Amino acid sequence: MRMRNKPWVAKYLEEFDHDVLIKEPSVYKGKWRSRLNKDIIHVEIGTGKGDYWLRMAKLYPNYGWIGIEKERNCAAIALKKAVVEPIDNRCFIIADASMISEWFADKEIDVIHLNFSDPWPKKRNHKKRLTHDLFIETYDKVLKNDGQIIMKTDNQQLFEFSLLNMQDKWRLNSVFVNFDSVVHQDVVTEYEKKFIDEGKPIYRAVWQKR
Amino acid sequence: MRMRNKPWVAKYLEEFDHDVLIKEPSVYKGKWRSRLNKDIIHVEIGTGKGDYWLRMAKLYPNYGWIGIEKERNCAAIALKKAVVEPIDNRCFIIADASMISEWFADKEIDVIHLNFSDPWPKKRNHKKRLTHDLFIETYDKVLKNDGQIIMKTDNQQLFEFSLLNMQDKWRLNSVFVNFDSVVHQDVVTEYEKKFIDEGKPIYRAVWQKR
Repeated sequence: MRMRNKPWVAKYLEEFDHDVLIKEPSVYKGKWRSRLNKDIIHVEIGTGKGDYWLRMAKLYPNYGWIGIEKERNCAAIALKKAVVEPIDNRCFIIADASMISEWFADKEIDVIHLNFSDPWPKKRNHKKRLTHDLFIETYDKVLKNDGQIIMKTDNQQLFEFSLLNMQDKWRLNSVFVNFDSVVHQDVVTEYEKKFIDEGKPIYRAVWQKR
Repeated sequence: MRMRNKPWVAKYLEEFDHDVLIKEPSVYKGKWRSRLNKDIIHVEIGTGKGDYWLRMAKLYPNYGWIGIEKERNCAAIALKKAVVEPIDNRCFIIADASMISEWFADKEIDVIHLNFSDPWPKKRNHKKRLTHDLFIETYDKVLKNDGQIIMKTDNQQLFEFSLLNMQDKWRLNSVFVNFDSVVHQDVVTEYEKKFIDEGKPIYRAVWQKR
């Protein structure tokens, strides 16, 4: 999610001193389960303002939830929300997800979530899509063998691209071309609610390694 | 497509005497290319009233087009349209498509089209869906090695079922969750136009054997 620079962000992040933020994630490589004290690790790549990440952490307290967001304005907003929540099964990384294999050991993650990721519509930018091979090969490394990638998006081109691009090495566990997050008891963020209110379909797919 | 019994149909079909209708399709097993005098054979399973089948035959005169419909009221309407068209690259079979391997030799068909097939919503009827394994295994036999299955539907459950069910033995060549038949110069039937006019999405997938 893109947003304008907020004047308070630089100072807020510089002075940020709460253990929800992991400033050197590679320190925890191979140790995330003990860091979060949970046996199951979920990672959301591209949290935006962090609503999904944080509300899922509250909804599923038996899992550890790691949010990753490179956009510093969004990250700061997510952290502001996180510090007032009395939960500790979550942490946050501000960096580009292409570095994920530097932070996680092989097969350390159970589930990767991609929610309303940037669709990068121009052909020359498709390599930046989070379901492009450049990323998928990295997820493959850090996800355990029966680990899952769960994607939710409003963008039809990104969804079609992902269905095509994932199919050779990943198997669809489930797919919805008009997903009802309410019926399926998934967290609905403000961002998603806007699309639902406009009557637009939400697409969702869950993949597992073949 | 279901419809009420039309009083003229039984007599019309009984007396029907035009070579567009193939009354004993097994006679042409292995000989469809010479029967239609075309090198490429397209088959539509479940033509309904035949608009797609017939208009595609006119639009693509270099291919042979075989329509299959088991519902006799629909079939009769399709034949009524066919006999007044001055083209001969088409023929029609009135029977259940589960018999397709009785009528076609191995690898005799280039492309199978499934348009707005009955979604059979109840779980116990899923085996009647035209993308159920029971059918797919038969298509596999009669389609040539790089042959394609092209599905177009307005029904999300049928589409999702098909994406899941086809993925192990078939590879998606293309997929659209909001297909614009006009932009893609595909034939738009009255049936499809109704959905487009209501702003409902059309789903389309093209599969090829893995």
